[in-house]
Amino acid sequence: MSGKTTRWRVSRVRDDAVEQRGDLLAVEEPLEIRIDGEPLTVTMRTPGDDIDLAAGFLYTEGLLGSLDQVREIRMCDENVAAVSPAAGAALAPSSRNFVTTSACGVCGKDSIEAIRVRSRFDVAADPVRVSAAVLASLPDRLRHAQRVFASTGGLHAAGLFTAAGELLVLREDVGRHNAVDKVAGWALRSGRLPLTGCVLLVSGRASFELVQKAVMIGVPVLAAVSAPSSLAASLASETGLTLVGFLRGATMNLYSGTERVLVCDPVASSK
Amino acid sequence: MSGKTTRWRVSRVRDDAVEQRGDLLAVEEPLEIRIDGEPLTVTMRTPGDDIDLAAGFLYTEGLLGSLDQVREIRMCDENVAAVSPAAGAALAPSSRNFVTTSACGVCGKDSIEAIRVRSRFDVAADPVRVSAAVLASLPDRLRHAQRVFASTGGLHAAGLFTAAGELLVLREDVGRHNAVDKVAGWALRSGRLPLTGCVLLVSGRASFELVQKAVMIGVPVLAAVSAPSSLAASLASETGLTLVGFLRGATMNLYSGTERVLVCDPVASSK
Repeated sequence: MSGKTTRWRVSRVRDDAVEQRGDLLAVEEPLEIRIDGEPLTVTMRTPGDDIDLAAGFLYTEGLLGSLDQVREIRMCDENVAAVSPAAGAALAPSSRNFVTTSACGVCGKDSIEAIRVRSRFDVAADPVRVSAAVLASLPDRLRHAQRVFASTGGLHAAGLFTAAGELLVLREDVGRHNAVDKVAGWALRSGRLPLTGCVLLVSGRASFELVQKAVMIGVPVLAAVSAPSSLAASLASETGLTLVGFLRGATMNLYSGTERVLVCDPVASSK
Repeated sequence: MSGKTTRWRVSRVRDDAVEQRGDLLAVEEPLEIRIDGEPLTVTMRTPGDDIDLAAGFLYTEGLLGSLDQVREIRMCDENVAAVSPAAGAALAPSSRNFVTTSACGVCGKDSIEAIRVRSRFDVAADPVRVSAAVLASLPDRLRHAQRVFASTGGLHAAGLFTAAGELLVLREDVGRHNAVDKVAGWALRSGRLPLTGCVLLVSGRASFELVQKAVMIGVPVLAAVSAPSSLAASLASETGLTLVGFLRGATMNLYSGTERVLVCDPVASSK
């Protein structure tokens, strides 16, 4: 399976009537990421842009600091991405279970400190401003682009926009974090990091993990169609990221970094 | 933080008007699971029912086969669950990164085989039948129960029901998989496995991972409010699980195990 969707025969029940019909399902397949032949992790993802996904994952997890550290990333099987480090570069985490490693000191008060990965970019310093009207237009633009590129509503999307609302890249996946890593890998591999002045929009909710990834790629504004979690809001506040939630129609909630969002007063009458 | 929700001050923007107000956010905190003092994994979860979560996670991931293998599970910190194996029991996976271990042979055609964990229960053999009318009633029952127990819509829910539609247990979490693991742990620790004759309902989508967990706890019917993925449908079909998707109002899609769902003809006139 290499497409984003696949056909499945379903029985559609409405009240007590049953109809047989075809349905399109979002494809989910495991991607194993190997470093120097050693399995690092497996992520359940929708095939497509897998090199970007592998590169973006390594970057947003803090295992990769720049492309110079990598000699090659190639698919050695349709579900295996093989990463070859450059001579002398050490990409492997100190333990194979890097999640545990980065969190081994987890305790109540310091939980953010224990699990967060340090970014090389300071999003707090990004002076960009974006109007509420532009933000309000983004979900429709994202959905429109999804209609053009895809054929199922079962996929999460991450869209990278300029502050003027221009779509730079759209990626889809059954996993929201994978869609964001695909954007991250695209940006890394096309030399665009940090993503100064940009807005990252994700379908659904905003978790700690998504805020972490946004900060890692230096994007100053993260917008979500649905709710953020407590730790997402805390990390956004601490790092100076603008976090927008419940972005629907002309309404939205700002959880942090509100100074970047402009609401417009009518032009004063010249009389 | 120990509650399921926390207050956060937000700026609510509607068109170009801004209003300051309080908002309730779903709490997200890391839970580290340790086996015999060794960190195994970290999951981002909503605090509450953490012992169930740890037990359910170990069980649905195939690391724990029965409670006899455990001497004790206790919280040694608000975000750390410490599992002490019984004498002679080996809970630790062969590698600390068990996800990778279970998937080290991933390749295209055999991807399900490579990543799935074998269940001790055969859900295909479960003779239970459930009426479409009962299934149709479950989302409202779940939401009603959520309104009673919780105060934010930002949490995913997993509800375990009898085939007659009686709610046995409801668990909520920022992560759908955690909500299901909390149900699994509750069932394991209360001696109810396998969950023969039951229906598990989850908010949102159904991934491979959720089907896997349902099969591991022997529940024969998994229903989701939204779409399943391709691999979810494939694994359900292969294991004989009944997979219901897009369960909304009186409509639903059946992706596998359709023989368990009853639609009712009107009683024939006696004339």
